[in-house]
Amino acid sequence: MGNKISVTVDSVVFCKVNNTFKVLLIQRKNEPFKDMWALPGGFVEVGEDLETAAKRELLEETGVVVQSMEQVQAFGKPGRDPRGHTISIAFLSRIFNEEELEPSDDAKDAKWMEIEKLPDEKLAFDHDEIINVAQQFL
Amino acid sequence: MGNKISVTVDSVVFCKVNNTFKVLLIQRKNEPFKDMWALPGGFVEVGEDLETAAKRELLEETGVVVQSMEQVQAFGKPGRDPRGHTISIAFLSRIFNEEELEPSDDAKDAKWMEIEKLPDEKLAFDHDEIINVAQQFL
Repeated sequence: MGNKISVTVDSVVFCKVNNTFKVLLIQRKNEPFKDMWALPGGFVEVGEDLETAAKRELLEETGVVVQSMEQVQAFGKPGRDPRGHTISIAFLSRIFNEEELEPSDDAKDAKWMEIEKLPDEKLAFDHDEIINVAQQFL
Repeated sequence: MGNKISVTVDSVVFCKVNNTFKVLLIQRKNEPFKDMWALPGGFVEVGEDLETAAKRELLEETGVVVQSMEQVQAFGKPGRDPRGHTISIAFLSRIFNEEELEPSDDAKDAKWMEIEKLPDEKLAFDHDEIINVAQQFL
């Protein structure tokens, strides 16, 4: 059994400060899209629940701990990842404080970005689209 | 790159006849869950779009053609497939007629099942749960 499709999770974490929505981004340490900004996320481990994987990657890359996440949807368009066919399950979390960030692991940096300033920044993969879809949940 | 997680799609096709909702089920020709009833679905091919895969599997197993589907969500709980860690992206489609079915490929039979009679029938995998979640879209 099996196919050569990989599975990742990506997290859209929103916070609201002074009536401004911000989203949590990391700067990628590695290829593909090295140095570009992206959503925190990564590969699901075999035997790992999807939401657990999303929380783990978020913690590893940003230091942020969230209690619960809701699923946005799966993004699976062929070509969205130059490494090969990769399906990402996107999760959403809302937090009330602009938490301090501790970038680590696959992230060389992390920041809170105002949503309205996002168009200035081309994100890695299809993460612009993922954020657009997640915003419909706000 | 890569992990040993497999990706499938499953389709929840509802039709409404005389104020009764029915869901399309197939009887599995092969293990696991051989002979049990299940949602039409199967493995996504490398390079294939998720919705395209869902329509292809639906056609192969039941003869039913649908124009569009909407995504329900991904189901990825470890243990949901005895063959190994398998993540299924569920899709939903509503059709207006109880179309004639032509079971083929991995399906030895197919039928329209009244939703309210579903509890009498233990379905393969976590397909009961998938149908429950999809019903929230009705």
